[in-house]
Amino acid sequence: MSGKAQVRKNRALRSHKTGLPPGALVAVGEAKTERLSITLIEYGAEEIVERSFDSIAEALDYPARLPTLWFNIYGLPDAESMRALGRRFQLHPLVLEDILNTDQRPKVDDYGDTLYLVVRFFDYDRDSMRVSSDQVSIVLGKEFVLTFQERPTGSFDPVRERLRQARGQIRRLAADYLAYALLDALVDRYFLVLEQIGERTELLEDELMHRATPGVLHTLHQLKRETLTLRRAVWPLREVVATLARGEGDFFRPETLPYLRDVYDHTVHVIESLEAIRDLLAGMLDIYLSSLSHRVNQEVRALTVIALIFMPATMISGIFGMNFRVMPLLENPFGFYIALGLIAGIAVTLGVVFWRRRWLG
Amino acid sequence: MSGKAQVRKNRALRSHKTGLPPGALVAVGEAKTERLSITLIEYGAEEIVERSFDSIAEALDYPARLPTLWFNIYGLPDAESMRALGRRFQLHPLVLEDILNTDQRPKVDDYGDTLYLVVRFFDYDRDSMRVSSDQVSIVLGKEFVLTFQERPTGSFDPVRERLRQARGQIRRLAADYLAYALLDALVDRYFLVLEQIGERTELLEDELMHRATPGVLHTLHQLKRETLTLRRAVWPLREVVATLARGEGDFFRPETLPYLRDVYDHTVHVIESLEAIRDLLAGMLDIYLSSLSHRVNQEVRALTVIALIFMPATMISGIFGMNFRVMPLLENPFGFYIALGLIAGIAVTLGVVFWRRRWLG
Amino acid sequence: MSGKAQVRKNRALRSHKTGLPPGALVAVGEAKTERLSITLIEYGAEEIVERSFDSIAEALDYPARLPTLWFNIYGLPDAESMRALGRRFQLHPLVLEDILNTDQRPKVDDYGDTLYLVVRFFDYDRDSMRVSSDQVSIVLGKEFVLTFQERPTGSFDPVRERLRQARGQIRRLAADYLAYALLDALVDRYFLVLEQIGERTELLEDELMHRATPGVLHTLHQLKRETLTLRRAVWPLREVVATLARGEGDFFRPETLPYLRDVYDHTVHVIESLEAIRDLLAGMLDIYLSSLSHRVNQEVRALTVIALIFMPATMISGIFGMNFRVMPLLENPFGFYIALGLIAGIAVTLGVVFWRRRWLG
Amino acid sequence: MSGKAQVRKNRALRSHKTGLPPGALVAVGEAKTERLSITLIEYGAEEIVERSFDSIAEALDYPARLPTLWFNIYGLPDAESMRALGRRFQLHPLVLEDILNTDQRPKVDDYGDTLYLVVRFFDYDRDSMRVSSDQVSIVLGKEFVLTFQERPTGSFDPVRERLRQARGQIRRLAADYLAYALLDALVDRYFLVLEQIGERTELLEDELMHRATPGVLHTLHQLKRETLTLRRAVWPLREVVATLARGEGDFFRPETLPYLRDVYDHTVHVIESLEAIRDLLAGMLDIYLSSLSHRVNQEVRALTVIALIFMPATMISGIFGMNFRVMPLLENPFGFYIALGLIAGIAVTLGVVFWRRRWLG
Amino acid sequence: MSGKAQVRKNRALRSHKTGLPPGALVAVGEAKTERLSITLIEYGAEEIVERSFDSIAEALDYPARLPTLWFNIYGLPDAESMRALGRRFQLHPLVLEDILNTDQRPKVDDYGDTLYLVVRFFDYDRDSMRVSSDQVSIVLGKEFVLTFQERPTGSFDPVRERLRQARGQIRRLAADYLAYALLDALVDRYFLVLEQIGERTELLEDELMHRATPGVLHTLHQLKRETLTLRRAVWPLREVVATLARGEGDFFRPETLPYLRDVYDHTVHVIESLEAIRDLLAGMLDIYLSSLSHRVNQEVRALTVIALIFMPATMISGIFGMNFRVMPLLENPFGFYIALGLIAGIAVTLGVVFWRRRWLG
Repeated sequence: MSGKAQVRKNRALRSHKTGLPPGALVAVGEAKTERLSITLIEYGAEEIVERSFDSIAEALDYPARLPTLWFNIYGLPDAESMRALGRRFQLHPLVLEDILNTDQRPKVDDYGDTLYLVVRFFDYDRDSMRVSSDQVSIVLGKEFVLTFQERPTGSFDPVRERLRQARGQIRRLAADYLAYALLDALVDRYFLVLEQIGERTELLEDELMHRATPGVLHTLHQLKRETLTLRRAVWPLREVVATLARGEGDFFRPETLPYLRDVYDHTVHVIESLEAIRDLLAGMLDIYLSSLSHRVNQEVRALTVIALIFMPATMISGIFGMNFRVMPLLENPFGFYIALGLIAGIAVTLGVVFWRRRWLG
Repeated sequence: MSGKAQVRKNRALRSHKTGLPPGALVAVGEAKTERLSITLIEYGAEEIVERSFDSIAEALDYPARLPTLWFNIYGLPDAESMRALGRRFQLHPLVLEDILNTDQRPKVDDYGDTLYLVVRFFDYDRDSMRVSSDQVSIVLGKEFVLTFQERPTGSFDPVRERLRQARGQIRRLAADYLAYALLDALVDRYFLVLEQIGERTELLEDELMHRATPGVLHTLHQLKRETLTLRRAVWPLREVVATLARGEGDFFRPETLPYLRDVYDHTVHVIESLEAIRDLLAGMLDIYLSSLSHRVNQEVRALTVIALIFMPATMISGIFGMNFRVMPLLENPFGFYIALGLIAGIAVTLGVVFWRRRWLG
Repeated sequence: MSGKAQVRKNRALRSHKTGLPPGALVAVGEAKTERLSITLIEYGAEEIVERSFDSIAEALDYPARLPTLWFNIYGLPDAESMRALGRRFQLHPLVLEDILNTDQRPKVDDYGDTLYLVVRFFDYDRDSMRVSSDQVSIVLGKEFVLTFQERPTGSFDPVRERLRQARGQIRRLAADYLAYALLDALVDRYFLVLEQIGERTELLEDELMHRATPGVLHTLHQLKRETLTLRRAVWPLREVVATLARGEGDFFRPETLPYLRDVYDHTVHVIESLEAIRDLLAGMLDIYLSSLSHRVNQEVRALTVIALIFMPATMISGIFGMNFRVMPLLENPFGFYIALGLIAGIAVTLGVVFWRRRWLG
Repeated sequence: MSGKAQVRKNRALRSHKTGLPPGALVAVGEAKTERLSITLIEYGAEEIVERSFDSIAEALDYPARLPTLWFNIYGLPDAESMRALGRRFQLHPLVLEDILNTDQRPKVDDYGDTLYLVVRFFDYDRDSMRVSSDQVSIVLGKEFVLTFQERPTGSFDPVRERLRQARGQIRRLAADYLAYALLDALVDRYFLVLEQIGERTELLEDELMHRATPGVLHTLHQLKRETLTLRRAVWPLREVVATLARGEGDFFRPETLPYLRDVYDHTVHVIESLEAIRDLLAGMLDIYLSSLSHRVNQEVRALTVIALIFMPATMISGIFGMNFRVMPLLENPFGFYIALGLIAGIAVTLGVVFWRRRWLG
Repeated sequence: MSGKAQVRKNRALRSHKTGLPPGALVAVGEAKTERLSITLIEYGAEEIVERSFDSIAEALDYPARLPTLWFNIYGLPDAESMRALGRRFQLHPLVLEDILNTDQRPKVDDYGDTLYLVVRFFDYDRDSMRVSSDQVSIVLGKEFVLTFQERPTGSFDPVRERLRQARGQIRRLAADYLAYALLDALVDRYFLVLEQIGERTELLEDELMHRATPGVLHTLHQLKRETLTLRRAVWPLREVVATLARGEGDFFRPETLPYLRDVYDHTVHVIESLEAIRDLLAGMLDIYLSSLSHRVNQEVRALTVIALIFMPATMISGIFGMNFRVMPLLENPFGFYIALGLIAGIAVTLGVVFWRRRWLG
């Protein structure tokens, strides 16, 4: 989603909620999917169970028995279901509110029993050439992880696959490692979006080298805006991950901290690549503006050359068009050709001068 | 209020007070309302009482009996009333002075018994398309909240309504939660103003794409100034809320702190949206300046095309207007048409060249 | 004083002192007044005594008996007097040196027994439309305040008046409160200078809207320089006041600290207003440069219109001025008028085209 | 490698790995060499042994007996070898992953038993005039140093030579000093690259003084990008070295810390030289843009001079070409020469005027 | 030395040393003097002895007996002498290396027994109008000060003179005060260089007001570079002096700290003056670029005026030069004068219009 669209969305939706008490459970954000989709995965080192449910009430009745529980919800549940979830997992009213309010900036809130993370998921639509963004809420408790997404995006599929196949150490470790794995999967997506923006930047750079049309400026403006949108999501995320990686609170065990530091390195990497693209775009703006200026220069030079070639010619023909009784050459049978020769001579001389000054072409 | 107007106001009013001792109770700021309007709300979990008074003296005589007292004043009281208020609620002389001095920047002062908050209320007037700003003073004591506004704005109506209807937990909680609710209501208004500025920015962007008139630059300048005005109020507010949310001092109970952190997130959100608008405006300035430059380019090209089409023609007619006795074609009955054909031929040839170079149109 | 003048002064005077040992008492700075003027005020809650002296030696002989002593000196004393003052009030050699060196930046030095403050006083001369600046040194001891100014400016008159009339609590409180009052009086003056700069900025903005002459740029440059000069004095002052308001050292009693925080708020206010003016000036520079560019655009368009109207006309008259024997219309008695009509017709047609494109005017 | 290329590489390679568990040992980065090259150096004050191996398995079987072991690998080993290395030297899975992922930013990770350093090696190719960059991983244990490079670059040859010849104190000191020496060798290379960039900057500056072609802008853009690439590697390196030089953790003994501070000074030196080059480039862009503007100015002036010289001449010849029956001078035998004289006189007069205004040339 | 020259020097010399072990004593830097010049001053409150030596070996044999020893060396000693010095005064190998490497940035290194300071001395050559810089190394021990300079500059002469004449308290205080005095003498020189740069800036500003030639831009660029060179030396120096003035370590006694704070104030003063000059230069660049743009505007206007005056005249003469049989006025004996009058009339009318629009001149 572009910067402008985000501003519009914030404004439009926020204002609907103005005046409600905090914790009022009203979905703030466009509904991106109609149907709620709930999946539950419980697992231990030896065993893994997956279930799908149609309603949250049903899901909450499921009796979990394995060490770690992952509860994933696509779509925004209604207020009643949220309250039931809140009672079951002892969530703070503000957490419930923030999950439904889908234009949050990335943040981490420590509520003692649970840790609440907001991260943004980014997607790039190849057809509209636009970046879109969804809110992902991750609630980490001692033995469970809850994830809320606005719509099914497939961003967590690799983690699900790893759980199923018991690849790596994910099944042997607890909920905090799962939370890390989800975070890592989201950050990995940033590199994909970065790739798209970078590719369009390079295409634009090539186009700019050939022809500086106003359309270049427009695309430049749009790329700059997408870079800024991504940047606004990654900078606070970096702070969030840095906070987690410092290991304050006891949500993440010491063994998981190096992995969080790795995610931190990735976010810094994303930020630096964004800054690199930004520098490129700024440099391209300079080149664009300078090429405009250079073209004015060439146009004026062309005018000057035209004036220099035709003005003397016009003057000479004007002089021989005067009506004086006594004028040299007029009676001369070669007079006309002498005059034409004069005109041509001046033109050739000037042509040589311009050629030497490299003014031609 | 625009940046210029604020500068003017500060200067004009401040200079009236230069040389007075601190704590001198002189209203510094334009009187925005003639009549003082005083309302008192006292409430507990079970009961709520609302009263209106004509004078502060009368209000101070009212015997409060419920746990929490909210005293709201529209307009600037006179010095005597302020002193009476100060004695009743044990306010520091500087607090009394600052309440009357309505061009303060947002701040928080901890006086041990009371906490003094200055926040700015923003309003957008659709007719004049201008942002105006009022000072709101909030004094928080253990069992009371005092609020001072320059004029009735309706900004606290949602809180009042919630108190009356006992919606949410507001009636069960103490004065610190009321202070939070008032702060939250003020910050919610910022989103409304942001919406207006954002909308005008988009309108301007559309206009800019069609026609880059100097009027665009003027509106750009004005929007930039309004953004700066809002920004100057929100940045210090962010510091204020951050200070409160850290829970230093014991004005806010631990249960209220998550709510303050929520307000903090909102102020950061406002700041980031403002920065996004600022980036948009800066990008629009680039486009505007570049389109000016591009237009010069097109004008010069038009000149060049005109010169190229007419100068050769004028030269040829000049040549055949020379008065040589012996000139070719003059006697030829089709001479005139040959000359005209030459002129037309040159024009058509140049036309094709320009068309190929895309110089036409 | 403008930035340039300050640079010049610093250089010129500093270089005279290069190579002297520290603490060498040589007046570094232009003498702004010939005659020294020494006033002494001693006061307690009940009583106040004012004296004037011709020489410092004489003043030092005066036996003080009231709790607080304020010693004010206009002009720069000679080395001998400074040494006598130093012995009487136990001042560090560097304090004596700094008092005479009148191009210091604002600072605070804690020497254990005394606190040494350098503040700059700003004045605006309406005739030359220039900002001038003087150094004010304030030495705060347990029971005395010494103030040194380069010339009589009247900046401390309001404080003196308050002392005389025992207005506010100033007479009941000790030397630290007096130091605060003096600091406050100096900062209040900044608002006056700010008013002048702001007023000229607005005048210039109005002028800019009407006509973008190079003179506008010149005034813009000058205002920017004055803003920078003021800014260079206020930023370090803010640090100084922040240091004092934190209450480190025991020069200021806890009761005085809220007043210092108030002065701190004022300096921040001055800084933010300066930044607002700076933003305005930067925006005005953009408008100025863009209006220059826009004007080039209009000039070129005028040229194009002229060329388009006259070049076809000239070509047509040239064509009918050719000397072919057989030319149409020449024999026609209305030929001349037909040619004139053709010329006029082209002019009218182009006029309509330009009018529709809004190129006229 | 230029900024663009780095962005491309990051994107392309990273995306291959998306979805894998952390610690998955997949080479992320182009293979820069086909064959692995493994060298082992063990040394003490008295003795040094060098060995080369074809496979890591073979190298790990080698029984080391001297106090310090340096294991250097060119090229990226396969997953199985990495795991064997990890078991032998007790490396964290993330270290193994990072070694193979060759687009890391410089960092230091403390894993208790080992310290993992990522540094970038820079090379300048004189033919393509491009800066390329390789990742160098350094693992420091109590008694060993492991180094991993993408390809043989010769960057560590001076250290190897010093070890062989026992120059300086390197053989008498332990593994931490060897790690310092390797770091120092890498930073020393930065100065060489800096030299190349600086040389091209100066050449460009000279070229700019003579002729401001669009090619200058292009080279300017490229140099700016290389500077940024180098800068992005040196800024985090500075943090890394600062962390090491503070001596936290016990990897570096107190005697080695002054040497690390020396490396820190070198990185700061590189950064400042880069900033100096950047300032130069920015100033050159200003000069380039201004010289474009200045040239437009000169072109327009040339046009004006041409118009001023030929237009009056054309007008005079036109006047004497009018067909009035009664016209002065026409019958005068010297009329033609008088007219020519008038034309020449105007031309000479204007020439003198332009010469005085220095408009010629 | 300009920024460019410094970059070149760094590169060229550094690369010679690449690959040497740390502490290798190779002079890195151009030899600025052929002959070494060694002076030794030992002094106490009562007595002072000065000696000159031809070689360091000879100087080290001198038996010192007074409390404080100042050893000053002009020129770079050979490796053997440096090692002898190192043994005598127990200097760390890196100190010896840094003394010979004359392109260090200002820094302070604490080696327990000795404190090593690098400061840069600046000089301004009036003839070449260039700033040159030398490295000054100061080693402070408990009872000695060693100073190393690249060539005799006279920068320490004032301190020497004060020692001889026992002016101030310098003879009564210990080595730390001498180190302060030397530092102060070096910083005082910065004001002299600042004076030169400021003077040239003002001259340039005056020139700019009269005529904006490309030469102005060139000087502007050069001044900016010199400012940056000085700035790069003063910013780290500020950090160095701030570190010393905090009194960490026990090299400087508490009585000396206020003097170091005074030096700190001076460096801040230099920095602020440099920033002021930088702002001036940036403003001058704006004025220069705007005046270029303004001049294009005026040139185009001149062209327009010329076209407007001559084109109608040419058209009228062309009209009356047409060859129609029947044309009005041709037979009229005053026809020619009527036509001339028409031409003159148009010229005068346009002249009045331009005069009113202030387009003339």
